[in-house]
Amino acid sequence: MAESNTEVVTACLLIIGDEILSGRTRDANLTYLAKWLNEEGIVLREARVIPDIAAVIVATVREVRTKFDYVFTTGGIGPTHDDITAECVAEAFGAPLEFSDAAAAELMVRLTGPLNEGRRRMAMIPKGARLIKNPVSGAPGFILGNVHVMAGSPQVMQAMLETLRGSLRRGRKVETAAIHVYAGESFMAPTLSRVQNAYPDVAIGSYPFAHDDKYGASLVLRSADPARLAAALTELRSALAEAGFLPLDGEAPPHRAVS
Amino acid sequence: MAESNTEVVTACLLIIGDEILSGRTRDANLTYLAKWLNEEGIVLREARVIPDIAAVIVATVREVRTKFDYVFTTGGIGPTHDDITAECVAEAFGAPLEFSDAAAAELMVRLTGPLNEGRRRMAMIPKGARLIKNPVSGAPGFILGNVHVMAGSPQVMQAMLETLRGSLRRGRKVETAAIHVYAGESFMAPTLSRVQNAYPDVAIGSYPFAHDDKYGASLVLRSADPARLAAALTELRSALAEAGFLPLDGEAPPHRAVS
Repeated sequence: MAESNTEVVTACLLIIGDEILSGRTRDANLTYLAKWLNEEGIVLREARVIPDIAAVIVATVREVRTKFDYVFTTGGIGPTHDDITAECVAEAFGAPLEFSDAAAAELMVRLTGPLNEGRRRMAMIPKGARLIKNPVSGAPGFILGNVHVMAGSPQVMQAMLETLRGSLRRGRKVETAAIHVYAGESFMAPTLSRVQNAYPDVAIGSYPFAHDDKYGASLVLRSADPARLAAALTELRSALAEAGFLPLDGEAPPHRAVS
Repeated sequence: MAESNTEVVTACLLIIGDEILSGRTRDANLTYLAKWLNEEGIVLREARVIPDIAAVIVATVREVRTKFDYVFTTGGIGPTHDDITAECVAEAFGAPLEFSDAAAAELMVRLTGPLNEGRRRMAMIPKGARLIKNPVSGAPGFILGNVHVMAGSPQVMQAMLETLRGSLRRGRKVETAAIHVYAGESFMAPTLSRVQNAYPDVAIGSYPFAHDDKYGASLVLRSADPARLAAALTELRSALAEAGFLPLDGEAPPHRAVS
């Protein structure tokens, strides 16, 4: 089935939290989710970082849940007053927020002490949602419609994703190939354009790097069709050689991006 | 003037590039821009990561330029076919894209060789735009209306920002204070809620951490009013102590975020 799957399944990530937008914390979930989704045949098409403002969260969830096949959120599901993701997602769907015995039970498996007010808050789940297990710290996420609500902690988010593996609708998986060349991008540009025009179904990206005072670029090809990807790679390799640019074999050198 | 400035000036960052959305490259610009903007009295209110798809870039620029006082973009201003930010911003404003002698001159200061096709591409600037100098590698960004188009390379982006320092409309600057406590968030939650309710103009965020198998949380207070911030900090400190939670003095311990 995977061989003949030509459907594009899209996703959007909402990163919820003032701590990201203020620069206090650097997001680590986008990169991980992007790669994980691609393994599942889903394309991360957009990500948004939004503040802990209820009206913004509600409006954004409403907008993106109709634009993308799947929405994933990270952050804002803890026990304190600033954790408002669950209530906002509930409101976006017009669903009431209810105390979930199942969520409370999962939450308390790893905790000592009472089911206090903060913990009860973490067990408030929109009506009709299914729980996402949290094998790390107990407190579950949930799925409501096409929206998947997860923790902001990378360790917890990654564990929650694992519990979803294989359960999502699978579309085309994008395959990637790369060529690394020590040459200025502007000199390779006409060659890249020509090959890109011949392979409109293969996205060719050019990402410059610097290494030992030498400049070059990583040319990254992406396509859901492995045969077309291979053909474009061969074509690009020979077009570059013809134009006098010699691709490096194997891995790219350690590099920093330059522009 | 800064003392009596109560205006909120907002910004949105558009991170443009398939390499970020595919997980190949981890964005480093959001965190830097957020802190830089705060120094300038501007609040980063939203960030979006969008793909190298012209229709998406044009529509997003059109939307956010009316929603926020300032828009900043990073990525997509190089010499290759996949660098389409300038033409998309031009289209979003209905402005023609023109060859700029000034941009070409700045570009060529640091380059050897001819003004080839790819380099000419980097000198194509929307009509009416002002250039943003690039002290690192020459190729300029530009300002069109309230949209600031910058490079994706962190080094270049940061240098471009420095050339803008002091030139933007300055609003309230958000001040921050933090208390770090070794205690479970859920136990502190009622105390936090009480202080938050008493200080609705001071945002209180709770960010859990783990260190040496002990759990705690960083309580971060943010406000544009230094007096209110100080009062909320004092109140929170004494409310925590009253409830039996002893804030750590000085800096937080090395920690990882946990949820």
